[in-house]
Amino acid sequence: MSAIVVWVLGSDSDLPHIEDGLAALSTLDVPFEVRILSAHRSPDAVDELARGARARGVRVLIGVAGGAAHLPGVLAARTTLPVIGVPIPTDLSGGLDSLLSIAQMPAGVPVATVGSNKAGGRNAALLAAEILATSDERLAVALDAMRAEMTRAVLQRDRDKGRRLEER
Amino acid sequence: MSAIVVWVLGSDSDLPHIEDGLAALSTLDVPFEVRILSAHRSPDAVDELARGARARGVRVLIGVAGGAAHLPGVLAARTTLPVIGVPIPTDLSGGLDSLLSIAQMPAGVPVATVGSNKAGGRNAALLAAEILATSDERLAVALDAMRAEMTRAVLQRDRDKGRRLEER
Amino acid sequence: MSAIVVWVLGSDSDLPHIEDGLAALSTLDVPFEVRILSAHRSPDAVDELARGARARGVRVLIGVAGGAAHLPGVLAARTTLPVIGVPIPTDLSGGLDSLLSIAQMPAGVPVATVGSNKAGGRNAALLAAEILATSDERLAVALDAMRAEMTRAVLQRDRDKGRRLEER
Amino acid sequence: MSAIVVWVLGSDSDLPHIEDGLAALSTLDVPFEVRILSAHRSPDAVDELARGARARGVRVLIGVAGGAAHLPGVLAARTTLPVIGVPIPTDLSGGLDSLLSIAQMPAGVPVATVGSNKAGGRNAALLAAEILATSDERLAVALDAMRAEMTRAVLQRDRDKGRRLEER
Amino acid sequence: MSAIVVWVLGSDSDLPHIEDGLAALSTLDVPFEVRILSAHRSPDAVDELARGARARGVRVLIGVAGGAAHLPGVLAARTTLPVIGVPIPTDLSGGLDSLLSIAQMPAGVPVATVGSNKAGGRNAALLAAEILATSDERLAVALDAMRAEMTRAVLQRDRDKGRRLEER
Amino acid sequence: MSAIVVWVLGSDSDLPHIEDGLAALSTLDVPFEVRILSAHRSPDAVDELARGARARGVRVLIGVAGGAAHLPGVLAARTTLPVIGVPIPTDLSGGLDSLLSIAQMPAGVPVATVGSNKAGGRNAALLAAEILATSDERLAVALDAMRAEMTRAVLQRDRDKGRRLEER
Amino acid sequence: MSAIVVWVLGSDSDLPHIEDGLAALSTLDVPFEVRILSAHRSPDAVDELARGARARGVRVLIGVAGGAAHLPGVLAARTTLPVIGVPIPTDLSGGLDSLLSIAQMPAGVPVATVGSNKAGGRNAALLAAEILATSDERLAVALDAMRAEMTRAVLQRDRDKGRRLEER
Amino acid sequence: MSAIVVWVLGSDSDLPHIEDGLAALSTLDVPFEVRILSAHRSPDAVDELARGARARGVRVLIGVAGGAAHLPGVLAARTTLPVIGVPIPTDLSGGLDSLLSIAQMPAGVPVATVGSNKAGGRNAALLAAEILATSDERLAVALDAMRAEMTRAVLQRDRDKGRRLEER
Repeated sequence: MSAIVVWVLGSDSDLPHIEDGLAALSTLDVPFEVRILSAHRSPDAVDELARGARARGVRVLIGVAGGAAHLPGVLAARTTLPVIGVPIPTDLSGGLDSLLSIAQMPAGVPVATVGSNKAGGRNAALLAAEILATSDERLAVALDAMRAEMTRAVLQRDRDKGRRLEER
Repeated sequence: MSAIVVWVLGSDSDLPHIEDGLAALSTLDVPFEVRILSAHRSPDAVDELARGARARGVRVLIGVAGGAAHLPGVLAARTTLPVIGVPIPTDLSGGLDSLLSIAQMPAGVPVATVGSNKAGGRNAALLAAEILATSDERLAVALDAMRAEMTRAVLQRDRDKGRRLEER
Repeated sequence: MSAIVVWVLGSDSDLPHIEDGLAALSTLDVPFEVRILSAHRSPDAVDELARGARARGVRVLIGVAGGAAHLPGVLAARTTLPVIGVPIPTDLSGGLDSLLSIAQMPAGVPVATVGSNKAGGRNAALLAAEILATSDERLAVALDAMRAEMTRAVLQRDRDKGRRLEER
Repeated sequence: MSAIVVWVLGSDSDLPHIEDGLAALSTLDVPFEVRILSAHRSPDAVDELARGARARGVRVLIGVAGGAAHLPGVLAARTTLPVIGVPIPTDLSGGLDSLLSIAQMPAGVPVATVGSNKAGGRNAALLAAEILATSDERLAVALDAMRAEMTRAVLQRDRDKGRRLEER
Repeated sequence: MSAIVVWVLGSDSDLPHIEDGLAALSTLDVPFEVRILSAHRSPDAVDELARGARARGVRVLIGVAGGAAHLPGVLAARTTLPVIGVPIPTDLSGGLDSLLSIAQMPAGVPVATVGSNKAGGRNAALLAAEILATSDERLAVALDAMRAEMTRAVLQRDRDKGRRLEER
Repeated sequence: MSAIVVWVLGSDSDLPHIEDGLAALSTLDVPFEVRILSAHRSPDAVDELARGARARGVRVLIGVAGGAAHLPGVLAARTTLPVIGVPIPTDLSGGLDSLLSIAQMPAGVPVATVGSNKAGGRNAALLAAEILATSDERLAVALDAMRAEMTRAVLQRDRDKGRRLEER
Repeated sequence: MSAIVVWVLGSDSDLPHIEDGLAALSTLDVPFEVRILSAHRSPDAVDELARGARARGVRVLIGVAGGAAHLPGVLAARTTLPVIGVPIPTDLSGGLDSLLSIAQMPAGVPVATVGSNKAGGRNAALLAAEILATSDERLAVALDAMRAEMTRAVLQRDRDKGRRLEER
Repeated sequence: MSAIVVWVLGSDSDLPHIEDGLAALSTLDVPFEVRILSAHRSPDAVDELARGARARGVRVLIGVAGGAAHLPGVLAARTTLPVIGVPIPTDLSGGLDSLLSIAQMPAGVPVATVGSNKAGGRNAALLAAEILATSDERLAVALDAMRAEMTRAVLQRDRDKGRRLEER
């Protein structure tokens, strides 16, 4: 079985940020890999990975980086596979540098940017799954089920922790 | 022939911002529609559109909005199709409000955000095409060709407008 | 007795942020409810709540959310009751994303935004009471009394903790 | 007939910013006044206006100011009537200074802040009307009608300027 | 002996922020008072203080506040004594809201703003002393001596903690 | 007659920004000079000016600069005269760089910062006059008269351009 | 004669931004080239240029880019020659995105960032010359002369446009 | 042996920020000094250091400062040696004030700014070494070796902590 989603992290210190995302892909039975490769410190490995991705069956790349977060853009420069960018929170306004460095790409080379908040890792995974589900009915159904379950959990929490007037 | 990409614009004044994007989809032979629907001023129409999209064959939604740019998120709340968000530039730091309102989504409901710069419209189109190309070999080839042509144009411009030492 | 103010929180983790506000409404004898409903994860429940609010006697809605904080705007899109928005502090500049996502609404659908600081919860409650007091003489008197007491407390603190010259 | 909404502008140069808002109140038959009074350059007049407002039948105050936009907060310090704050766009990030100076009020003295965008003036008017409509059935109906008309106009624009697939 | 510098703090929680400033004034033998008065919660007391200040011999006012930090501007609106503004750090970008709310005053009513950093309290005190020293030769000499001592301490620290090449 | 206020501008292109300020000082009969000296391009001249200022009767320095606006701080490093800093608007958020570079001084060397808005030049002049007026009764009276005239003008504008209800 | 400084521009629309810089290098007799190559649209050409630069005698690279301005960092990832980064102004806060994308590099791969203001192009050239002058006595002398001339021009402008007291 | 790189820190509290940088220079056998000198509190010592640097064999200066971080610019105003600026993180958006105060220099006096992140100290050292290596073959080789080792470490970490599909 070969990976169809590949995560590329600029640093292993970013691993906790994507835990939820890895779990989501596992739940959805989407085979994935996690690579620790820096756009600046190991540029050749990043290039090679991006260039060879489509040929070996990868269908979505996810670049995870902080600060001058060039990794997603560098991946996107070498493939026309969809590249998702995950901005890691930093001390600079909580990750504004990461967010702008990833989102403000020039015309012709898009990156699908998710939030610089805690949700970034999980949302990158779900976005990857949504992309795959455009041609995978089973996955589309699984995503809808996951969404429905999420809604159910919200409503349950509303019942448990909300305060209706009768309760007071 | 039915639309597989649907653009939803919060205001018709945003139409110029996506011209390049529409042209790109036309070039790539991706059938699309453009709707002018506000998340706040016509919420039911937006809901209905998002909810019914997958069933009628739509595979990617693109929400285009500025300021408290809720439109992409509101679309994403009602479908598990991939939703691309295009932040329209504003006077608030050139669109920082639009960018943050679109990108900082909570866990579970991703939006694929592109830049709040001039490239946003075109990059949304290309990202949509990249998503479709994950299961459409013809489109993947077309995207690679478009990318190669873009590279060629850059190199030509370098020859035309760059200054090598001999020329001085 | 039915609720005339309804708080809607995007997440139960935001509950501590509104404690002071709930206390203020209790002190002022304004009946209220607290709901935990996400604009993105349970959109139908939010819609239904907003749409049905006026009919069941609700007169003010308060949406509490962080990040791409669409909740108050989504409520406002479905009712012409006054909607107060409370931006939850985040890591992005301490809540600048929440503040902008709530405040920068398009023409036609206002949200009454309070601060993204610690005072947000309490001030939302007082603003709701001020709105109700425009047609409730008892409440207007109670608000004036609360304000006078607050002033008295400030002056007392000035006497206790200030340093007049004689004291040195 | 006496005014029930009073606009207070820090400068007459801000008048164009509220044109749409004045028109909205006129359409809704809400009697209003416009005063040009600076919190810093004519503080006594501002104080007097705020303090005497409730007694003479005013029910909502709207403070319009830019930069260190203290006017709405200064009004709110002297009345428990609801005070709406309208941040005027400036050169500092398009009005971020105005927005923060108005929104970030301390606990106990709320200001209902609207956007620092072009919609601010109109939304202040509509918010004022929504507040009045909590006890004015006629106005509530009028607001709902205005909202419905706005929705209708959006849908019409969608039909006129949108691009359905058939049209291409 | 009567106060010639009066500090006004919006909240007693800001007292630690000005400790160094109080110490500096004590060292320089400048008589001062500290008042805890909120521009929004005790506006009359603030007005009265500002209006009466010059008559009772006060020569500099220092307003200390955070968030929508109107206090220094409100003082300045009621006196032509020099008013120094000290922005208290907040969670919003570390006090950007405080800084902008204090600094961006309209033409005609200046506030002398110091930093929103830890140095704000001490620098307000020194600025007040510099102002007084424009007509107080003794104080000018004392300030120069304090400055010289500060320089001496820096140079000593350079000798103690710097690393000249010989030391390695 | 010798100057008691000295303006130092980093660039002659900043001259229009202080026109109103020069006019204000002229009106108040405060003798002043304007120097065009850059902290970075003519550091010795700036040092010499700051160091010699007190001895030749100068009592307030005003530094006007944009971007990495070091000029006011550099002046303050070499004198204990009060130094007022005027941040020139720039393209970076309308002058946020100028404002921060001037305001965020380290402990021990204060700069009295005014706004980065259009009012900066005039407010620097008025602040200088307020400082001088702490020991100049004539000037204090003149400032109060100027303030009263300003208030009168505001009230006149309110009568001329405001809209009382009768007028409608 | 071979180039020892190579400018790389992400777009030919950035050429005006470096005019002053090219003139400065010409004045200083530093041989240079200008290339128009995008990090995202022509990544191979950029890589090749960076990798081969030292071998063909280049000693400083200057990357000029806006938005998600990856170009300088991408150059730096492939050479240990000094790389200067020039952030092009944009609509996002006047170039804050460009500045952060260039400056916030990870440990190990530095970029020497200059301002996102109009001075960026010229200062990049001068910085390049300063770097070369660390081993080129002639250039060091030329830089000092250029600096002295600049100082002289400032002082002349002070004499021409400043206002000493006698002149009034 | 005399220093060829001189670090100047505005405060000894910034020493930890440059630890990695000092280590890098030691590894590369670049002789350096560390001075603790404030641009504002000990301006003469800073001037003297900058002015005399080239004559005593220094070839690169590194200024390290936070807030209104004038130190690097003040050094650059007095020498045409390359000056590297290291913005120390602060509470204001994590060091945005430091970054802007250092980077936004006027035309004619460049500062080579590195990031306001944790990498700043190390990257300043490496940039200094890169500058020296433009005329020092040994150092160029050492830098390339250090870079290669860094790449090797990244790839090792990828092998250790990455997740290839087989491992799952």
